[in-house]
Amino acid sequence: MSELTHLDEQGQARMVEVGGKAVTHREAVARGEVAMRKETLELIVEGKAPKGEVFGVARIAGIMAAKKTSALIPLCHPLMISGVDVYFRPNYDRNTVEIEARVRVTGQTGVEMEALTAVSVAALAIYDMCKAADREMVIGAVRLVHKSGGKSGAFERKGEAAWS
Amino acid sequence: MSELTHLDEQGQARMVEVGGKAVTHREAVARGEVAMRKETLELIVEGKAPKGEVFGVARIAGIMAAKKTSALIPLCHPLMISGVDVYFRPNYDRNTVEIEARVRVTGQTGVEMEALTAVSVAALAIYDMCKAADREMVIGAVRLVHKSGGKSGAFERKGEAAWS
Amino acid sequence: MSELTHLDEQGQARMVEVGGKAVTHREAVARGEVAMRKETLELIVEGKAPKGEVFGVARIAGIMAAKKTSALIPLCHPLMISGVDVYFRPNYDRNTVEIEARVRVTGQTGVEMEALTAVSVAALAIYDMCKAADREMVIGAVRLVHKSGGKSGAFERKGEAAWS
Amino acid sequence: MSELTHLDEQGQARMVEVGGKAVTHREAVARGEVAMRKETLELIVEGKAPKGEVFGVARIAGIMAAKKTSALIPLCHPLMISGVDVYFRPNYDRNTVEIEARVRVTGQTGVEMEALTAVSVAALAIYDMCKAADREMVIGAVRLVHKSGGKSGAFERKGEAAWS
Amino acid sequence: MSELTHLDEQGQARMVEVGGKAVTHREAVARGEVAMRKETLELIVEGKAPKGEVFGVARIAGIMAAKKTSALIPLCHPLMISGVDVYFRPNYDRNTVEIEARVRVTGQTGVEMEALTAVSVAALAIYDMCKAADREMVIGAVRLVHKSGGKSGAFERKGEAAWS
Amino acid sequence: MSELTHLDEQGQARMVEVGGKAVTHREAVARGEVAMRKETLELIVEGKAPKGEVFGVARIAGIMAAKKTSALIPLCHPLMISGVDVYFRPNYDRNTVEIEARVRVTGQTGVEMEALTAVSVAALAIYDMCKAADREMVIGAVRLVHKSGGKSGAFERKGEAAWS
Repeated sequence: MSELTHLDEQGQARMVEVGGKAVTHREAVARGEVAMRKETLELIVEGKAPKGEVFGVARIAGIMAAKKTSALIPLCHPLMISGVDVYFRPNYDRNTVEIEARVRVTGQTGVEMEALTAVSVAALAIYDMCKAADREMVIGAVRLVHKSGGKSGAFERKGEAAWS
Repeated sequence: MSELTHLDEQGQARMVEVGGKAVTHREAVARGEVAMRKETLELIVEGKAPKGEVFGVARIAGIMAAKKTSALIPLCHPLMISGVDVYFRPNYDRNTVEIEARVRVTGQTGVEMEALTAVSVAALAIYDMCKAADREMVIGAVRLVHKSGGKSGAFERKGEAAWS
Repeated sequence: MSELTHLDEQGQARMVEVGGKAVTHREAVARGEVAMRKETLELIVEGKAPKGEVFGVARIAGIMAAKKTSALIPLCHPLMISGVDVYFRPNYDRNTVEIEARVRVTGQTGVEMEALTAVSVAALAIYDMCKAADREMVIGAVRLVHKSGGKSGAFERKGEAAWS
Repeated sequence: MSELTHLDEQGQARMVEVGGKAVTHREAVARGEVAMRKETLELIVEGKAPKGEVFGVARIAGIMAAKKTSALIPLCHPLMISGVDVYFRPNYDRNTVEIEARVRVTGQTGVEMEALTAVSVAALAIYDMCKAADREMVIGAVRLVHKSGGKSGAFERKGEAAWS
Repeated sequence: MSELTHLDEQGQARMVEVGGKAVTHREAVARGEVAMRKETLELIVEGKAPKGEVFGVARIAGIMAAKKTSALIPLCHPLMISGVDVYFRPNYDRNTVEIEARVRVTGQTGVEMEALTAVSVAALAIYDMCKAADREMVIGAVRLVHKSGGKSGAFERKGEAAWS
Repeated sequence: MSELTHLDEQGQARMVEVGGKAVTHREAVARGEVAMRKETLELIVEGKAPKGEVFGVARIAGIMAAKKTSALIPLCHPLMISGVDVYFRPNYDRNTVEIEARVRVTGQTGVEMEALTAVSVAALAIYDMCKAADREMVIGAVRLVHKSGGKSGAFERKGEAAWS
């Protein structure tokens, strides 16, 4: 098992040197969800709000958060992401909003933190916009689904189907 | 059921006017968790890393994120939080790190978004520091546990025991 | 005529002390516009984009910029704005998008800079989203329309009709 | 006419993928102006303020804003600008301060948004420093004047003379 | 001797709760200096640069940094500073630039960190502008000189004369 | 002696164009110190605080500040640092905490400002955490110790021994 690379031999935090890593095209996809009451989900998707406005605001929150990742996560490297997509999908069976973020870069470090941050902040923005109606929403299942382009090899989380 | 107050009559996003609200002492507590492999949890808590360093970094990430909440969540009001605590607790039965954030303010809006943001970013920081060892960690159960001080009344989530 | 209060007796910049000013409810309204080709305006309002998405993104840009004003304008005081609205209105006679921002605060300084910043950044966001179609757009007429609540008295710019 | 590339097929905002674009030297020049009363212009240029202090502060505001562009404009890519100049020129015939910003980068996306943002924020800073003397200033004619280095070809706005 | 209040009983960092403190007018003054070669000092003050431009840029850097203090210092409380002054004074005997920052607030916490941050960042900005001419400059003597307005009583550092 | 490159021929500030510089591996090391009372040093290192917590928080402050350098220093270029280390060392003879920051990048500009900023902000964070116990601490000797990788040649400050 690997050690924690963000800690040096004395166990002190550091921003790991990546200057010797290859510059490659990298991509990461993360997913998560916001569980809520059935009425809250309807309010977002079919209710008085025009379709998409809650998702529209949360999408911008997620995209802008991806750009702020290295300012939020202490030991994360700054990088110039080349593209971000954030998608939402209501799941009426489970009364959740599912979120997917896809981030790409040409650089020396992966973008899984950017994708996970985009999902997390998009979820928080949904919570913020709906909290007057439902305080009990739960953000969960925030996870890495796909990663490619780095030295450590591609990663595909099992059991994750592509979104149509 | 309440409407979505962050949208005006045309369904357009707005930052809701709170100027008429009372200035009161307000507090919010949020919780969440990072699920991981048993070995990853041991690496954090008992392993080569000195006890607490991963939690120490994640705590600072959470506290600093609480202060950035209004810059991350589009329709959130800026406010001057008066105190923040972030706690971590390993759960060896479930192989999770449990996170609790407690935020206080004297102001016109609640601090549930600040508490939820602190938990989310602390969880992301843990993921970042351990991802070389475990890519499959999942951030979940990010939820509001307690809220007091506002006009809408106190909120206590059921089934949440105080941390000893 | 007043002097430039942001400069001291030696002509050096300073952030003017406002600690002695009264805390009052204050409001400012600013307007501006983006002039473009007829086809560009149609593309935004009636075209392939769903109605409102360009405006939706620009609205969020304006609201978030209002919150960043004191970080952008060197001598501006930080303040906790209590509400922001950003509106858009296509003007088919002049081929412009008209923008209005309304900002409120309870504090010791006015919010005209916040309102002007919201308009300017919303305009820049529109430019950004449409620049692939029209490089010759012009942002103009960015101006203060209304100001109330401070010691210097209310201000109403002449010839500005309320938006219906 | 081009479509709006910042929207996907469903009309949803995205940060367009630029990873496949060539890395080239790129430059953009933007201009704008602040119209004011004759007395205000004199106050800035010849008045009690030492020559240049208002312009000095506004220049720094513009340069720093160029660096913040991707944090302000939701769908803008982060990039590492390699140089910025901001110039001011009083126009006594029209009672305006004219502003020019010149931004360069070696990268995959153009810097027109950085140049336009530098001009806009420099103009807002001038407004801020002079607003105690003149509330009726108007920021206008913010426009792209020159762009070179990208795939879409060079752009020269007609009727724009070089500043001596 | 006092304990370290930023650590709780377990020695874990926290942002100390200040909600119960009185809202009072508070002021802090900090000073520091940049030591340099005689030629560098002359270059700044009497040389080819117009008098004051280096100081002008460093002053803005210091003022803007004061506003960012709570984003830089992990356990610092956000607050709305009501005024900032930054002064520079060449000392030809010691070949230093002396820096003084004065910050005021009406709030629940003191502003010594804001004053010290303003001095430090102004010093760094001077270093940055002069480093092509002199790599060996040293920033030193960054210290609190005056503090008033809080519960812990006024503080006057001995041996610090007022700047004329 | 070199001129001040951050000023153009008119003495106006600018962000110097670096687009023509070579992309090379660059490194900078800076050092500084916080002088304090003997009791304060003991409180940090041996006292009630668990060993390292004050240093742990200050280390994160320094690392995160290194990433913010171009947002703090007006004419500094943005760059993507590839690694940062921040070290602390108590000096019981002089009653100081010594700080060293080491920053690396592959880019067109050096990272001395990033290293100096990391040291300065780490020092400010130490001050912040200990100020309740000791108001008279002094931050000093903030200096560049090593620089390599740029066109201007390597720099080694005399009299600086490597830290064991």
